[in-house]
Amino acid sequence: MHADRIRQLIDTKTKPLGALGQLEDLAVQIALIQQTETPALLHPHVLVFAADHGLAAEGVSAYPSHITHGMVHNFMAGGAAINVFCRQNGLNLLVCDVGVNGSFDTQAGTPGASTLVKYKIRAGSRNMNLEPAMTPDECEAALDAGKTMVNGVRYRNCNVVGFGEMGIGNTSSAALLMHRFTGLPLVDCVGRGTGLDDAGLAHKQAVLRSVADRYADLTDPLAILAAMGGLEIAAMVGGLLQAAEEQMVILIDGFIATAALLVARTINPDLDRFCVFCHESDEAGHRLMLDYLNVQPLLRLRMRLGEGTGCALAYPLLQAAVGMLNEMASMDSLQA
Amino acid sequence: MHADRIRQLIDTKTKPLGALGQLEDLAVQIALIQQTETPALLHPHVLVFAADHGLAAEGVSAYPSHITHGMVHNFMAGGAAINVFCRQNGLNLLVCDVGVNGSFDTQAGTPGASTLVKYKIRAGSRNMNLEPAMTPDECEAALDAGKTMVNGVRYRNCNVVGFGEMGIGNTSSAALLMHRFTGLPLVDCVGRGTGLDDAGLAHKQAVLRSVADRYADLTDPLAILAAMGGLEIAAMVGGLLQAAEEQMVILIDGFIATAALLVARTINPDLDRFCVFCHESDEAGHRLMLDYLNVQPLLRLRMRLGEGTGCALAYPLLQAAVGMLNEMASMDSLQA
Repeated sequence: MHADRIRQLIDTKTKPLGALGQLEDLAVQIALIQQTETPALLHPHVLVFAADHGLAAEGVSAYPSHITHGMVHNFMAGGAAINVFCRQNGLNLLVCDVGVNGSFDTQAGTPGASTLVKYKIRAGSRNMNLEPAMTPDECEAALDAGKTMVNGVRYRNCNVVGFGEMGIGNTSSAALLMHRFTGLPLVDCVGRGTGLDDAGLAHKQAVLRSVADRYADLTDPLAILAAMGGLEIAAMVGGLLQAAEEQMVILIDGFIATAALLVARTINPDLDRFCVFCHESDEAGHRLMLDYLNVQPLLRLRMRLGEGTGCALAYPLLQAAVGMLNEMASMDSLQA
Repeated sequence: MHADRIRQLIDTKTKPLGALGQLEDLAVQIALIQQTETPALLHPHVLVFAADHGLAAEGVSAYPSHITHGMVHNFMAGGAAINVFCRQNGLNLLVCDVGVNGSFDTQAGTPGASTLVKYKIRAGSRNMNLEPAMTPDECEAALDAGKTMVNGVRYRNCNVVGFGEMGIGNTSSAALLMHRFTGLPLVDCVGRGTGLDDAGLAHKQAVLRSVADRYADLTDPLAILAAMGGLEIAAMVGGLLQAAEEQMVILIDGFIATAALLVARTINPDLDRFCVFCHESDEAGHRLMLDYLNVQPLLRLRMRLGEGTGCALAYPLLQAAVGMLNEMASMDSLQA
């Protein structure tokens, strides 16, 4: 099936030609992914990967590392933004601990919250300013965690999956990966994260310059990921690759998730066509990432929260696109 | 209650300060409208006002007038975009015939579609290139229709209402009203509507120039509305005024709805604070209207359909803003 066929179908609907703008493009994309004129979004999931970052010891974040652990508890108690938005818009939420520095007594979340999937590889990545963030084995294990999570929801008949993250310090990893995989100057890739002031931002810039220089000779994508990524980012890379393999609709969130995509698409260049860019984050580098990928996000709400919140908020627009295709009447059925 | 109090409450939530961007502003706005820290969106409605335009005889639209009648049938059958989006996002839809050139056998819509409210004032407005679109009495009756519709849903405990329209030719009225109420040059106010080509656009410009000149001496807002508005636009003006009177959250759709607001806010200058600007339409003048009002829309999806579709698509973002306020945990409740 080709895009033209879907566009012809959309053009028969009871509306002026092209009047639904970006929703029409979205309907075409989803129809092509599913190879049908009557696509359906089934059992949508947001998968949130959580991990700590050794680099946080260098003072690159406005928030302390233990917030990661606290926020995972919050996901399980249903009190985080991603819980609220998933409940509201009918998405399932799963949180996966791939590297939180702290233990959890239980896996069970409260009703309407998230179960915790325990897949801890290490209690946080290593301090990449001293050694690679992950050993090759740790990186591989994180990739596998992401793949396993996607296979798990696919098995439950899910065909649309969003990726979110929680990890104090992870805008640093994302900025470094962005720098390496887009070639943009590091200074353009580094932003304020959860809210650094000017001095904090200058310090973060200096630390990341040092890290970027340390691994400047690496060229293999997975070696770069292991050196400067994070356990949750590696898990997202694995998840993205598996979701494309399974021909799923993929919801891309903000700065961190798009950084994971920048890595994953060097491994599978066909990945982009499965991706819906849910929002433009307010984190400085995200606009540049989207420009680099030459894509239009669905939402621009000055958000910079992560957790997959952009995916959950944009999801009704995917439903609208699919609903338009399946439920709108055709012009020639109009009663005059 | 003041905005500061709500902002303080939002700042305690489990997220970095300001990280939910425009959703935070929206939460503040809704809380202030309802004067509570725990706002609730109840029985949301989209009211679609339909009417024909005598000016259509001058060839200002790409579609023929009888499409208005056909589309009202389509609303009642559940096949229009607004039906799909209202069903999906849990909004109630009511269509009100204030001036369709054509009759309807029944008021009952099919399940999941819209009931028709019959409030026909005239079978279309007059050709404003020859005489005012409405007499003062007709304009007054249309305002009353809008007020009555709002009172009807308010009586059903609705506290959030969007306004949509269907009327072949109504971007001409909206452009003329925009020109008069913003002072922007007419040429910047006129767009392609449902899809005019370059020649059609030039013709529309010429016709509207003639109309604008004809009524250039009018200064009373309601006289301008009667001369160059439409029955459905006047109904929206009445509805907007009544919704503000009832302290409801008001969803503003695209070019036509915002034109109605431009009129209504000259009558009630307090109206703006009740209005949520749901999207930026692709119709040329809409960006300029929003700039004139100095407001940020929630969605920018290159849509230009009307019917209230922008309201229905943006509504989940209002729910998210309210959910954030009511359901998110506070930072000091985080388990370390």
